[in-house]
Amino acid sequence: MGIIVQKYGGSSVGSADKIRNVADFIIKKKNEGNKVVVVVSAMGDTTDDLLSLADQISENPDKRELDALLSTGEMISASLLAMALKDKGCDSVSYNAFQIGLKSTEQHGRALIVDMEEKIILKSLKEGKAVIVCGFQGVFEDGSITTLGRGGSDTTAVALACKLKGECEIYTDVSGIYTVDPRVYNNAKKLDYIDYEEILELSSLGAQVMHSRSIEIGQKYGIPIYVGLSCSNIKGTIIKETEDMNIEEKPITGLATSDSDLSVTISNLPQDTDLISSIFQNIADRKINVDMICKSTSILGYTQLSFTVPKADLEEIKGIIGKYTSKKNIFIDEDITKFSAVGIGMKTTSGVAAKIFRIFSQNRIEIKMITTSEIRITVAIKRKDKEKAVKLVAEEFNL
Amino acid sequence: MGIIVQKYGGSSVGSADKIRNVADFIIKKKNEGNKVVVVVSAMGDTTDDLLSLADQISENPDKRELDALLSTGEMISASLLAMALKDKGCDSVSYNAFQIGLKSTEQHGRALIVDMEEKIILKSLKEGKAVIVCGFQGVFEDGSITTLGRGGSDTTAVALACKLKGECEIYTDVSGIYTVDPRVYNNAKKLDYIDYEEILELSSLGAQVMHSRSIEIGQKYGIPIYVGLSCSNIKGTIIKETEDMNIEEKPITGLATSDSDLSVTISNLPQDTDLISSIFQNIADRKINVDMICKSTSILGYTQLSFTVPKADLEEIKGIIGKYTSKKNIFIDEDITKFSAVGIGMKTTSGVAAKIFRIFSQNRIEIKMITTSEIRITVAIKRKDKEKAVKLVAEEFNL
Repeated sequence: MGIIVQKYGGSSVGSADKIRNVADFIIKKKNEGNKVVVVVSAMGDTTDDLLSLADQISENPDKRELDALLSTGEMISASLLAMALKDKGCDSVSYNAFQIGLKSTEQHGRALIVDMEEKIILKSLKEGKAVIVCGFQGVFEDGSITTLGRGGSDTTAVALACKLKGECEIYTDVSGIYTVDPRVYNNAKKLDYIDYEEILELSSLGAQVMHSRSIEIGQKYGIPIYVGLSCSNIKGTIIKETEDMNIEEKPITGLATSDSDLSVTISNLPQDTDLISSIFQNIADRKINVDMICKSTSILGYTQLSFTVPKADLEEIKGIIGKYTSKKNIFIDEDITKFSAVGIGMKTTSGVAAKIFRIFSQNRIEIKMITTSEIRITVAIKRKDKEKAVKLVAEEFNL
Repeated sequence: MGIIVQKYGGSSVGSADKIRNVADFIIKKKNEGNKVVVVVSAMGDTTDDLLSLADQISENPDKRELDALLSTGEMISASLLAMALKDKGCDSVSYNAFQIGLKSTEQHGRALIVDMEEKIILKSLKEGKAVIVCGFQGVFEDGSITTLGRGGSDTTAVALACKLKGECEIYTDVSGIYTVDPRVYNNAKKLDYIDYEEILELSSLGAQVMHSRSIEIGQKYGIPIYVGLSCSNIKGTIIKETEDMNIEEKPITGLATSDSDLSVTISNLPQDTDLISSIFQNIADRKINVDMICKSTSILGYTQLSFTVPKADLEEIKGIIGKYTSKKNIFIDEDITKFSAVGIGMKTTSGVAAKIFRIFSQNRIEIKMITTSEIRITVAIKRKDKEKAVKLVAEEFNL
């Protein structure tokens, strides 16, 4: 009997009725002869409701306490799902991070899973129980509760699948992974397969299908991850190594956009590698994710440096760079959308970037910043140009 | 510097504003030179909201999972209160039952505290922090979350005060302990002091000021318990040993009523002590609290047995007694109010019961059952007679 680790997102367990539906779906899987471990997110808008409570208490809520607060959302849905299963005659038990010794690093709000004890889970599975695990949470070695960041339940699920040597199924409110977010471009096509690298780029760029860290773990340990519609048999998408796919057929697998970052530009910065290194070290120390970085060549010993960071980190980033230069040299641009095209095929197809830039220039889409990787091209554009850019590039590359 | 353990009830932390008020009150106590540990209940109606969610999932929710669910209410309020304190510049930390190793017995929904680790709390106090502890919850040795029953946060607070050798202050939405519930009898007087025995009888009889178990612990370890209005300097009531009080002045200290029980009567039961002992052993095994018990003398080898149990346990109790007799011999009366008069002074004053029975008979209040202890008289009456009974007895004994 194989172990299947399923994960259900917040909208899949958004009400008592939906939780009972999920329970039926789990029982079906179990009756097919599988041992089932289920990771749940918080119900519907619970996390947002808890965040709003925290906002009413403090403008800048203490991060340790915020994690303690947010972690309750998953405890609620996990216990309710176990309750629903028992009510339907399927023995079940819920576990939180303390109960399965799910250890994490210390960074509140973006902790990484360090390890977990599989013994208690295996014992419960052996007893014929469906095991429900609270996603998104961990415990630091000092006993503090941590959370793994938005979408962290995906990571809990993939990590569990690795630890238990099981299959991994992520159930959500979309029926798989699309070339472009269907809400942005409604002709988008669903993919049968996608490479870890591609979904990793798409996720980290805001495609928001999966938590990046979960893909990294899946890739590292070679766990294929199925992504599909909750409580449905509609075929979803499998994330796996794509050596056997005909990658040259298509240079671009998918597009992603994100409005959650802002760009910071520092002008008149002395051309000094130590200085620039120190800036980014300081930012990294605060665990702020810098994404796009551009530095111009220096003129007369001075240079210009631009980078993007999450909007949520604006105040912290101002504090950091304020130590290096005066206010008049700092420019913040909040009106940016990161537009990214991703494809393993780019490795072997040239001219993809050039084609995209030509489309943008012909259609008066201003290019604010550019960064690229082997399989990705990211361009910062104005927010108002987002839909236009997606439509034009999707049509050009038949996505 | 002394340690003060404060407890705030659900209505005291019912909103973000109220939580910030409580934080101010805690800071004041701390600034007076005290080390403060605070036990919190769930915000306002949170526990009821969670119960209603469970009801939507299952008619008979699994008890282990129900406790896991309900315990989140206190985790939410504890983290928010710690957040509010930090926001106001007072260093603080919240702990749940796992984090302070608060071990309990196994009975879900009515677990007893076994022990807790004071080390981590003392360390945090030494660091100058206000320590916030989730009330109402414990952890059984198998790692399951338990809850201590309605009002269990009182018990958490008193147990902590014992363990930390501190003072205990229970803050609630009433300004102290009254001779009669002011909602039932609005001329009720507030007491400056009350004996553990008296409040214990009153609490267990439905006065609902305090969780009975908390008083038992306070009495056992000689911890005086202050009960007063949240965030206020209005003088409340101190629960303590009353050897120094003039107990003979008044035979009755307080009245309590409870509508939460029903009576079960079994007729035509063979006069067999083993049988009766077996019935109550079976009920006790299910951890159902039997309160009033009456057994008539037997006639021709048969007897009649009546007792009261919480309405919530109706189905379970039917299952148990159904094994001993047929349905036609079982009578359930849900229309009862337990009316109790309590006073240490009863020990030395005779005729108190007779006076109460006379008042009832003169005013056509039917007496369904009677039980007494050294300091208590309890009478089961019809629910519609409750207010009348309270008013008549309170006036007669000047309460």
